[in-house]
Amino acid sequence: MTSSSETTPVTAAILVIGDEILSGRTKDKNIGYIAEYLTNIGIDLREVRVVPDIQDEIVQALNALRARFSYVFTTGGIGPTHDDITADSVAAAFGVSIDHDPRAIAMLSERFPPDQLNEARLRMARIPAGADLIANSVSKAPGFNIGNVYVMAGVPSIMQAMLDVVAPTLRTGIRMLSDTVRAGLREGDIGTALAAVAKAHPEVSIGSYPFFSEAGPDTNIVVRSRDPEKLAAATAAVLAMIDSERARLAV
Amino acid sequence: MTSSSETTPVTAAILVIGDEILSGRTKDKNIGYIAEYLTNIGIDLREVRVVPDIQDEIVQALNALRARFSYVFTTGGIGPTHDDITADSVAAAFGVSIDHDPRAIAMLSERFPPDQLNEARLRMARIPAGADLIANSVSKAPGFNIGNVYVMAGVPSIMQAMLDVVAPTLRTGIRMLSDTVRAGLREGDIGTALAAVAKAHPEVSIGSYPFFSEAGPDTNIVVRSRDPEKLAAATAAVLAMIDSERARLAV
Repeated sequence: MTSSSETTPVTAAILVIGDEILSGRTKDKNIGYIAEYLTNIGIDLREVRVVPDIQDEIVQALNALRARFSYVFTTGGIGPTHDDITADSVAAAFGVSIDHDPRAIAMLSERFPPDQLNEARLRMARIPAGADLIANSVSKAPGFNIGNVYVMAGVPSIMQAMLDVVAPTLRTGIRMLSDTVRAGLREGDIGTALAAVAKAHPEVSIGSYPFFSEAGPDTNIVVRSRDPEKLAAATAAVLAMIDSERARLAV
Repeated sequence: MTSSSETTPVTAAILVIGDEILSGRTKDKNIGYIAEYLTNIGIDLREVRVVPDIQDEIVQALNALRARFSYVFTTGGIGPTHDDITADSVAAAFGVSIDHDPRAIAMLSERFPPDQLNEARLRMARIPAGADLIANSVSKAPGFNIGNVYVMAGVPSIMQAMLDVVAPTLRTGIRMLSDTVRAGLREGDIGTALAAVAKAHPEVSIGSYPFFSEAGPDTNIVVRSRDPEKLAAATAAVLAMIDSERARLAV
């Protein structure tokens, strides 16, 4: 991680590209993985979009997201077949040319002998002008970075390997800290008192997540802040509120 | 399902609302479920967005999506706590008022005795003016439908129950049919020949999805069409192409 004294949050969006996610045929495994990864390195994921394999849709979504957030991470659509149109779409979004990149051909050549480096596989060496490559330790075909956009594979194992390559190069903010408090009470029992705690601690974020345990309905209260003292104060207030509510409800 | 002779596709978007998805703390299970469900009833999912618990973000995304697609399905943010702001945000997006709805209070009263129907739980009865309620067989607190927007819970079991209630009321199109052909070849081996098949069958959609089996890298070719004859013709062309490529590669 680049060390950083950023006080403004570093933000990100994910753009998932692929008809197979929208049809439900493939269940996305990348959004949750990237979300947790970015949180752990101090980058705030602010939006996710999933779009089909249609160039206009990809261009429009990418341009909307890259204008608003520090980083955009895309997954999917960089394979060797006709429906892999991410690289061409990213080039169109940035208004740059795209062609076979000698660096990418060299990477593919580590895996494929010349007679296998056919027209289809060479599609994977099409890289927008000005982009830097992202190494792929799993299957060689690279991702790439252009501007604030990082283009990665859709196959989870490959995407994860690429994200490990990219992460050390990213500007990161102060990591978001969080405390989770299990209330032992139903969400509706504590909602009013919790809203008062949230109002009294406006600089922390307090979320309430109901769940079912063997003992019945229960609630996790998640307190989040970049400031450890504010976090501790708000968490203490949540704990006191829960004690008070448990006494009131005679639990 | 409403029977239908629609020839234009019925389209949909999903709007997932929740900081917990963006932080990675909760892994979304609803997108894939709804995607597959809609495909099975002849509705094309065209876009998904995930946004945080911030009213302006919710309003902006909802207005963008409801203008473009036949239906929008939202998940999350309709519980009893201060961070549940979906109903208020939807009312703002539609420019209508929102208040405690007697029908929703009646539903909540089936589960909660009067002394438990506190301020927090009554938040779950706040419904935008003009909306129809969506019954919740799991925990009573309803979702709602306003215009072409269907507001559902984030807890998967509750969302699924609500979707079962909503589905029979939806306009549906001709169901998308699909054939999956396992190539027994690597994606890069067949990419060029597959592109030619796709070009010769422009009215079907052909996707290529690589995967790893015990025997090594392999590829599923998915052919999709609403027309069974066009589907059969394109699938036959894919099978012939694979036979030809296997012979060429002496597999």
